[in-house]
Amino acid sequence: MDVQRLKSLLEAVRQGEVTVEGAVERLRRLPFEDLGFAKVDHHRGLRQGTPEVVFAPGKTRAQIVAIAGRLAAAGEAVVITRLAAADAVAIRRRIRGLRYSDAGRVAWLSRRRREPPLGRLLVVSAGTSDIPVAEEAAITAECAGCAVDRLFDVGVSGIHRLLENHEQLDRAHVIVVVAGMEGALPSVVGGLVSQPVIAVPTSIGYGASFGGLAALLAMLNTCAAGVTVVNIDNGFGAAMAAVRLLHQLGRAG
Amino acid sequence: MDVQRLKSLLEAVRQGEVTVEGAVERLRRLPFEDLGFAKVDHHRGLRQGTPEVVFAPGKTRAQIVAIAGRLAAAGEAVVITRLAAADAVAIRRRIRGLRYSDAGRVAWLSRRRREPPLGRLLVVSAGTSDIPVAEEAAITAECAGCAVDRLFDVGVSGIHRLLENHEQLDRAHVIVVVAGMEGALPSVVGGLVSQPVIAVPTSIGYGASFGGLAALLAMLNTCAAGVTVVNIDNGFGAAMAAVRLLHQLGRAG
Amino acid sequence: MDVQRLKSLLEAVRQGEVTVEGAVERLRRLPFEDLGFAKVDHHRGLRQGTPEVVFAPGKTRAQIVAIAGRLAAAGEAVVITRLAAADAVAIRRRIRGLRYSDAGRVAWLSRRRREPPLGRLLVVSAGTSDIPVAEEAAITAECAGCAVDRLFDVGVSGIHRLLENHEQLDRAHVIVVVAGMEGALPSVVGGLVSQPVIAVPTSIGYGASFGGLAALLAMLNTCAAGVTVVNIDNGFGAAMAAVRLLHQLGRAG
Amino acid sequence: MDVQRLKSLLEAVRQGEVTVEGAVERLRRLPFEDLGFAKVDHHRGLRQGTPEVVFAPGKTRAQIVAIAGRLAAAGEAVVITRLAAADAVAIRRRIRGLRYSDAGRVAWLSRRRREPPLGRLLVVSAGTSDIPVAEEAAITAECAGCAVDRLFDVGVSGIHRLLENHEQLDRAHVIVVVAGMEGALPSVVGGLVSQPVIAVPTSIGYGASFGGLAALLAMLNTCAAGVTVVNIDNGFGAAMAAVRLLHQLGRAG
Amino acid sequence: MDVQRLKSLLEAVRQGEVTVEGAVERLRRLPFEDLGFAKVDHHRGLRQGTPEVVFAPGKTRAQIVAIAGRLAAAGEAVVITRLAAADAVAIRRRIRGLRYSDAGRVAWLSRRRREPPLGRLLVVSAGTSDIPVAEEAAITAECAGCAVDRLFDVGVSGIHRLLENHEQLDRAHVIVVVAGMEGALPSVVGGLVSQPVIAVPTSIGYGASFGGLAALLAMLNTCAAGVTVVNIDNGFGAAMAAVRLLHQLGRAG
Amino acid sequence: MDVQRLKSLLEAVRQGEVTVEGAVERLRRLPFEDLGFAKVDHHRGLRQGTPEVVFAPGKTRAQIVAIAGRLAAAGEAVVITRLAAADAVAIRRRIRGLRYSDAGRVAWLSRRRREPPLGRLLVVSAGTSDIPVAEEAAITAECAGCAVDRLFDVGVSGIHRLLENHEQLDRAHVIVVVAGMEGALPSVVGGLVSQPVIAVPTSIGYGASFGGLAALLAMLNTCAAGVTVVNIDNGFGAAMAAVRLLHQLGRAG
Amino acid sequence: MDVQRLKSLLEAVRQGEVTVEGAVERLRRLPFEDLGFAKVDHHRGLRQGTPEVVFAPGKTRAQIVAIAGRLAAAGEAVVITRLAAADAVAIRRRIRGLRYSDAGRVAWLSRRRREPPLGRLLVVSAGTSDIPVAEEAAITAECAGCAVDRLFDVGVSGIHRLLENHEQLDRAHVIVVVAGMEGALPSVVGGLVSQPVIAVPTSIGYGASFGGLAALLAMLNTCAAGVTVVNIDNGFGAAMAAVRLLHQLGRAG
Amino acid sequence: MDVQRLKSLLEAVRQGEVTVEGAVERLRRLPFEDLGFAKVDHHRGLRQGTPEVVFAPGKTRAQIVAIAGRLAAAGEAVVITRLAAADAVAIRRRIRGLRYSDAGRVAWLSRRRREPPLGRLLVVSAGTSDIPVAEEAAITAECAGCAVDRLFDVGVSGIHRLLENHEQLDRAHVIVVVAGMEGALPSVVGGLVSQPVIAVPTSIGYGASFGGLAALLAMLNTCAAGVTVVNIDNGFGAAMAAVRLLHQLGRAG
Repeated sequence: MDVQRLKSLLEAVRQGEVTVEGAVERLRRLPFEDLGFAKVDHHRGLRQGTPEVVFAPGKTRAQIVAIAGRLAAAGEAVVITRLAAADAVAIRRRIRGLRYSDAGRVAWLSRRRREPPLGRLLVVSAGTSDIPVAEEAAITAECAGCAVDRLFDVGVSGIHRLLENHEQLDRAHVIVVVAGMEGALPSVVGGLVSQPVIAVPTSIGYGASFGGLAALLAMLNTCAAGVTVVNIDNGFGAAMAAVRLLHQLGRAG
Repeated sequence: MDVQRLKSLLEAVRQGEVTVEGAVERLRRLPFEDLGFAKVDHHRGLRQGTPEVVFAPGKTRAQIVAIAGRLAAAGEAVVITRLAAADAVAIRRRIRGLRYSDAGRVAWLSRRRREPPLGRLLVVSAGTSDIPVAEEAAITAECAGCAVDRLFDVGVSGIHRLLENHEQLDRAHVIVVVAGMEGALPSVVGGLVSQPVIAVPTSIGYGASFGGLAALLAMLNTCAAGVTVVNIDNGFGAAMAAVRLLHQLGRAG
Repeated sequence: MDVQRLKSLLEAVRQGEVTVEGAVERLRRLPFEDLGFAKVDHHRGLRQGTPEVVFAPGKTRAQIVAIAGRLAAAGEAVVITRLAAADAVAIRRRIRGLRYSDAGRVAWLSRRRREPPLGRLLVVSAGTSDIPVAEEAAITAECAGCAVDRLFDVGVSGIHRLLENHEQLDRAHVIVVVAGMEGALPSVVGGLVSQPVIAVPTSIGYGASFGGLAALLAMLNTCAAGVTVVNIDNGFGAAMAAVRLLHQLGRAG
Repeated sequence: MDVQRLKSLLEAVRQGEVTVEGAVERLRRLPFEDLGFAKVDHHRGLRQGTPEVVFAPGKTRAQIVAIAGRLAAAGEAVVITRLAAADAVAIRRRIRGLRYSDAGRVAWLSRRRREPPLGRLLVVSAGTSDIPVAEEAAITAECAGCAVDRLFDVGVSGIHRLLENHEQLDRAHVIVVVAGMEGALPSVVGGLVSQPVIAVPTSIGYGASFGGLAALLAMLNTCAAGVTVVNIDNGFGAAMAAVRLLHQLGRAG
Repeated sequence: MDVQRLKSLLEAVRQGEVTVEGAVERLRRLPFEDLGFAKVDHHRGLRQGTPEVVFAPGKTRAQIVAIAGRLAAAGEAVVITRLAAADAVAIRRRIRGLRYSDAGRVAWLSRRRREPPLGRLLVVSAGTSDIPVAEEAAITAECAGCAVDRLFDVGVSGIHRLLENHEQLDRAHVIVVVAGMEGALPSVVGGLVSQPVIAVPTSIGYGASFGGLAALLAMLNTCAAGVTVVNIDNGFGAAMAAVRLLHQLGRAG
Repeated sequence: MDVQRLKSLLEAVRQGEVTVEGAVERLRRLPFEDLGFAKVDHHRGLRQGTPEVVFAPGKTRAQIVAIAGRLAAAGEAVVITRLAAADAVAIRRRIRGLRYSDAGRVAWLSRRRREPPLGRLLVVSAGTSDIPVAEEAAITAECAGCAVDRLFDVGVSGIHRLLENHEQLDRAHVIVVVAGMEGALPSVVGGLVSQPVIAVPTSIGYGASFGGLAALLAMLNTCAAGVTVVNIDNGFGAAMAAVRLLHQLGRAG
Repeated sequence: MDVQRLKSLLEAVRQGEVTVEGAVERLRRLPFEDLGFAKVDHHRGLRQGTPEVVFAPGKTRAQIVAIAGRLAAAGEAVVITRLAAADAVAIRRRIRGLRYSDAGRVAWLSRRRREPPLGRLLVVSAGTSDIPVAEEAAITAECAGCAVDRLFDVGVSGIHRLLENHEQLDRAHVIVVVAGMEGALPSVVGGLVSQPVIAVPTSIGYGASFGGLAALLAMLNTCAAGVTVVNIDNGFGAAMAAVRLLHQLGRAG
Repeated sequence: MDVQRLKSLLEAVRQGEVTVEGAVERLRRLPFEDLGFAKVDHHRGLRQGTPEVVFAPGKTRAQIVAIAGRLAAAGEAVVITRLAAADAVAIRRRIRGLRYSDAGRVAWLSRRRREPPLGRLLVVSAGTSDIPVAEEAAITAECAGCAVDRLFDVGVSGIHRLLENHEQLDRAHVIVVVAGMEGALPSVVGGLVSQPVIAVPTSIGYGASFGGLAALLAMLNTCAAGVTVVNIDNGFGAAMAAVRLLHQLGRAG
């Protein structure tokens, strides 16, 4: 959507020819811009309440810089997931203000400082090895304006660790539970709390974990009713699901 | 938890020896009752905001009557899922007021008439064959106090059917999308709306659908960020996830 | 091994031509008897400390009666697993003293009344639907001379139920944990106790449980070190593993 | 088939000793030439209307040069698929006129300049990451004489992008739809148009995409009747299927 | 789309207010009618050139009669696939003129007698057991106006049978190849001919055929370039793919 | 658990306010210490009778040194599994006394010199390639105080090799059997002996071994009753299972 | 191939116009006869040295009688596999001399009484439940003229049973080994003997046997070099493989 | 087996205390020698008619040299499979006379020059990429004394290539057929010939070939009766199966 069309639309709104609701509706459905290799969607924030997220694997540094730079220039929040540390160093030279988390392999440029926050998300993880996925979820949610608590390394073989931290469980509006291996943690958490629980299987494990399949199947078969699941290692997707939910809370509140 | 213990606890609350919060906490963690073959959990509603649900397959009519009867006697809402029509006829003779839906293979006894409703859920289904699962979700959610809209037979091979109904999409607080075969509908819905979307794969299909595996994998790999997934044919689970979420809305509102 | 050969061997022992150890060795390796369609192994008890177990599926009633009758005539303990109730009625008419458990689908004829028992086994199960497999394990172990405790319906979505029963966990020499769906219970039990834990996945569940595969993979990927696994629904096998272990305890004690 | 044999055959046709149909038949069934490690088939173009295509993986540069050079010397069109950029540079030094597409990892030497083109193919792709496969399809088809339109990055989570481009859909004779992740795009396209639709799953995705299996299963289970599928990442195969079809159009036209 | 709206549209065409192309476009995108449990699409023939097809499994006789009757009343061609013989007898009493094929488990009511036919389809099958799927494809295509040849029981273990029938191969515009077990026939056919080849794996076989998976994988991995594949046992889908293609031929011719 | 809390507890024991059993119980359930990225569990030895084991893959050398160093400083036994030789060299510079086995890729620091040993474990392996997993099991068990015998390269295709070594089989309290490829060895061993047998599938093999899946399935389907299984390549887990068992023997003895 | 054509061919041979070799060649490649639903191949015996075998599942009794009757009338040997006992009774009324084995679910009509036999086949099976498949192999081979020994119920958990019967192993020209569950027996046999060993996995087992997949994978991964495998439950196929081999022996002898 | 024991045995033979047959028997069952990491079996040739084969992957050069050197010193034939070219260069410096095939990745030291050869093996391969596996089979068989013909690049999409070479098919005693992708070639060959056919699936292909699984399943489901299968890429195993068979021919001849 070019500037001209945007102006026309807004002018129409001013003239009363288009209602505000109508203009929001058209903005939600229309605008994207062609970079040749990817159609960048500047108004996704407006349409779904989320920043554009760049999935780094399979893209060259030049492509990442081009996409992220265009978004940054447009004043958008940017999140780049699965970004190698070496790539992050190179890209940060090109995009000022970009921050990077080694633990979560995520880079971000956050324009929004939301007060009050969108809501409170708790990210729980089972083992040390699940932290990259858990951090990906946590940082993505923070970039979208959520307040995020972290409760890591509380796997089910030492269930007392989880039980000792029930205050953190209680105060969250939504809980993301990240686990590899047997993927049992979301069932236990889902049985302890009444809030929404989003389970993220990770590819942590070996042998018959089959790249996270074991944890994924376990989570889908949870005996704790109402736990939902996202793809293996998809910390970003879990955060987005939490954001969808917290946006609804925001409207309700 | 027997009556005696419940009385003692409530008395203690009255005396100020136990705070209300403390009593809720203890009630949430403790009570279940032993029927010999299954521990019935009367206070699950209190702990997680949901009625006890009886999964019929693998249980005899006598067992179903025993469990459901005990719950009914305790004044609980009861939902029995995957119940064959013939079994429903027999069981309804034993439990007064039990209703049954052929389409959803669900029987229920709903004590709660919630005003205002817990929130508004939209259940979308792709094809005629997905309706049993969609109805299981819809009725379960209604039993838990939700207002439920239905939008059925709007699969992606006739995408115009979905687009024509965007008002229904817009007014829902949360959307459950039920689809078999290629499982593409949640991705399309997830791209159109900003609300939480819970995807339910169904075992509808043949050949390489592998009992719903194709739809399940498609939904886990959705390109619409923030869509979450429950197990194949798990309409009940999707409803419970929606209820968890709507409870949070209720607290926020 | 016919009586004649047995006599000759024992005579040789008496004469000092064969040592006692040598005779035990030969008895452990040799004897089986041909029924035409199955080689019945009378001395398995001697060789492995277990009764002969007849796996009913795929056998006709006549075959089951023939095998079990021959064993009974030889004074052996008999266990028949996965036996339909209707078949049990018919077979009990032919073999006096045979008992049958509906819950476990097991028939047995127990000759040994072991005092003191071989050791103490605890069988834990996650849900009501797992009871047939749990009972198969429990009864098989009882037939082999074990003292067996049962702790049923203590699944991980209500983890407090398990925690309240830690006395039973503590006093067992070995624990068999039976669970379907997400198969998380052995990990939690394995983290609570230091005894041997044998996990049995069950085919309970639907959709992406894939006939118990989800639970099986979860158990193989347990984060609780030292938990071992047997085949799906193999309550009998878990009992036999416990018996192997308790025999070692017996020798040590 | 060497020139001498070809001449003899054609002479025989001229003399009336062999009919034209007979000669075409023999040419279609006979000729290939032995390079030791691969039997190069010069008349495949004649037999199936397609150039010989060299699949680069697992072949050394020397082998690729030998095969491609022999084909070039014989005046054949050559397409080399899945060719790494570094290999392309080396091979282009040896075969004059060879062109290379980074985006599609394809090298080609196109002898035929077909007027009018064989027909019009539209290649649609869901995401940026699917472009290599889409370009492989597009370039292969162009080498075979097709006119090719491209419509990239129109995935189902932003379905409006596709709907806005229906003119391109309408004017194509055949449509190749390339998609990874949930593989839903062919179902949507197949529901919008009445032309033949060939679906290509890609290995794009992670976690439970299982190297493109999720997209493949989704496409096989499409609810849009008459959509057909080729192997994962097989852009070349989809192009060949389109060419088979357009050849039929050419004969009909 | 009710009659009123159809009349208005056609009147507008007559008045020159809507062009013919515009009217076709609107008819292609709009009309469907709600039966409560299924949205029947009367103009699918117009939109995609195919009759509405009713997939019988999972539907009651009453539902099938309702859907098929409504279509018949509207003058549509009807095809009912996977229909058991007993059901066919019952349904034929309700819908006059309905025909039924035991071999293909298909019932149909064909209104169109197309002259000349839409084109020529050859259906090839590997074994006797593949005939139901092959007949489903053949009859569906005939109902859509195609001329259909059949070449059955020409599997690859007796390759001479196929080679003797190359005249039939040569005169087809498009070939559907149906095979179970190792699924090799499409590769052989695809190597012999230059026409489009659509492969249909069947669930025929046992053991490691895994319900047709072996044949499906084989066909997807065909070494004959340009062969496309539909779902296991999906004779209907293969026919629809052929119809899409023959419609294009019709436009070109 | 910090020193202060430990002192208080022990003081309470001394005062008679807490019994010895009670103190053991509290120590078993409570203490862990936060390193930021991993909660190190000093008293696991006390709780489960095993040293803390560090699984090296996915951890940096710095992380391994930090965890192992903290454990060493606390006087704990340390076992580091799946440790590359190069990493071992680097880490040994930082932790004095650390030993390393190339064959088993295990490093360890063993504080306990147990007399008499905890019991006798026999580790049997099928082929040369299975030795790393077998050694991982053997060394882990030795660190936990077991006496370990090794019987390597006695696969079932040369069954006489195994039969010749039955003395070693006979004197073990528990047997760990490690095998890749067809995974048949545990069945043969399980049929020869009456002791507990723990089977470890390895990822040794190629083609249809699918990374050890073939061996895993074989072991789960063993016809030798009472054989249990751990995850693919999980030598450590098998050792831990043996240790759980031998601890029980120790209590019984 | 009708009698007339056969006579002409043989006459041509007599006249010296066709050589004997040429006639055999033509007979091997040409004749089959069309029954409408199946092309019966009368000379398969001549072409491959085997009788025509009718696979009963999916065929009606009438179809089986038609095919088998035609073959019987032509003087061919007939083998009908996977035939239910009830069907056998009905079919034997129609085809005189047909024999039936309950154990192997095979019916046969054997014309050839081969002296000396084609060679000596040993069929070994692991358990009682594997006997149907083993008998299918044994009877099929006997119908093709082989001498067959049977050695049943010698599974690897009682390896001594096999070792005691090495004379039978030694005198066979080829050995078929049938096993379900963990499928280990072919590896053990293959290590004991130097003759060809053909392994047949059976679908016997439960849980993670996955319909014989576990045994199949085990056999494909055998550590005994030179063991080959046929499909699950394919006793017939194993017999045919043995017959191919024994025919070669016959020519060599 | 050391020299001393061998001498004693042979002396006993000479004295008539042990028969020749008895001595062969003992030699067949007994001898192997311990290198520490692998038990080298010098008399495997005697026991199974095959040279010892060293599978290179996972072994260090030093280990390969040690094993192969010991065998060479003992005068054994040696075959080393899956050996990288660089390793071959290094190893050939240590073992004189070792030869290496780049195409087959096999090194060998052949002591036996068998006249006449053991029999005639034909190795057929479908594509250029299958040659490494085909050569592994061919060279292994040559080392074992077979005469080997090669017929490469005759895949089913150009079936005429195979039909033109039927002389080679006819003169073979046994045929090994190597194919990747859809794995159809063994079915076609098996239908053309009456000799034993051993199928070898290769991991050649991409996408849904799943590392050779597609070809493996196709071969197991072959419609050509009596074709047997070995593991994916197992050229060595196919050769060993052929050798077992040709040894039987040799005894018969």
